[in-house]
Amino acid sequence: MRVLGIDPGLTRCGMGVVEGEAGRPLRLVDVNVLRTSADEHVSMRLVHIERGIEAWLDEHRPDAVAIERVFARSDSSTVMGTAQASGIAMVVAARRGLPIALHTPSEVKAAVSGSGRAGKAQVGAMVTRILRLEAPPRPADAADALALAITHIWRGGAQARIDAAVAAAGRWTP
Amino acid sequence: MRVLGIDPGLTRCGMGVVEGEAGRPLRLVDVNVLRTSADEHVSMRLVHIERGIEAWLDEHRPDAVAIERVFARSDSSTVMGTAQASGIAMVVAARRGLPIALHTPSEVKAAVSGSGRAGKAQVGAMVTRILRLEAPPRPADAADALALAITHIWRGGAQARIDAAVAAAGRWTP
Repeated sequence: MRVLGIDPGLTRCGMGVVEGEAGRPLRLVDVNVLRTSADEHVSMRLVHIERGIEAWLDEHRPDAVAIERVFARSDSSTVMGTAQASGIAMVVAARRGLPIALHTPSEVKAAVSGSGRAGKAQVGAMVTRILRLEAPPRPADAADALALAITHIWRGGAQARIDAAVAAAGRWTP
Repeated sequence: MRVLGIDPGLTRCGMGVVEGEAGRPLRLVDVNVLRTSADEHVSMRLVHIERGIEAWLDEHRPDAVAIERVFARSDSSTVMGTAQASGIAMVVAARRGLPIALHTPSEVKAAVSGSGRAGKAQVGAMVTRILRLEAPPRPADAADALALAITHIWRGGAQARIDAAVAAAGRWTP
């Protein structure tokens, strides 16, 4: 299974592609951070993000897209741009009929580090270990995108095993 | 000048097309509210909104698009969906190279009613009067979309007159 993780943002939008399945070593396919300038109108920044994600879907052909779920937080001036970028990411993937999953930051932290309150450095360290990289991906948006893809593969794998177990149990029902 | 006003929203997205110029009577071209169901995944709801706006741009060929500027407000559970819908509206218009303007709710209320604190009913009443309609457009999202288009034409008109005055003054400079 190949998953594109997207950590949406207007200034920096992390994209990470990971391949593998739950219970096996995972492989980093590619990682990048789309950047747009605050000098541009927000509409053009969103168009650049749309094109950047489109280009990656063309290049890497993922089986699913995992996007960070964005919450309204009054303490952040960037949350509206993040919400808009996440909406663009969803539309680009949905137009192609790709499965889309939204994972919260806590779910991602818990999946890769065991703690929903893990810090950026801890997430980066775990992504580095899980993907057997030589150094943590920089900036943090890149590591977060990879963590999203890892989370998706692991959670999907667990769900697939449960589904398989249920199906197997069903076959043994008299 | 023909302007498409968009009052973005995930459940109801108002779209209103108004034609005319500042200082002249304005004309309602068309008004509609795109609706998407909460039963659908947010990604598909956004795709429906994208298609609905695309269809209207094809049909009505506006010269500009006026979109309500969305603010982060912790007191609203719908603000993230609204932000995502506004992002889609911006991208659809920007992809076609259309001029995009964002107007705040206060600017729109002030433009059509003289008060930045006008209520929904007052905005609806003024839109009805300005466009010489028989009844206020329903639901409020429809009236708000038309108010956005009216605001854009009037503000654009004022700006154009200032630009013209500056240019005329420039011609008389020795």
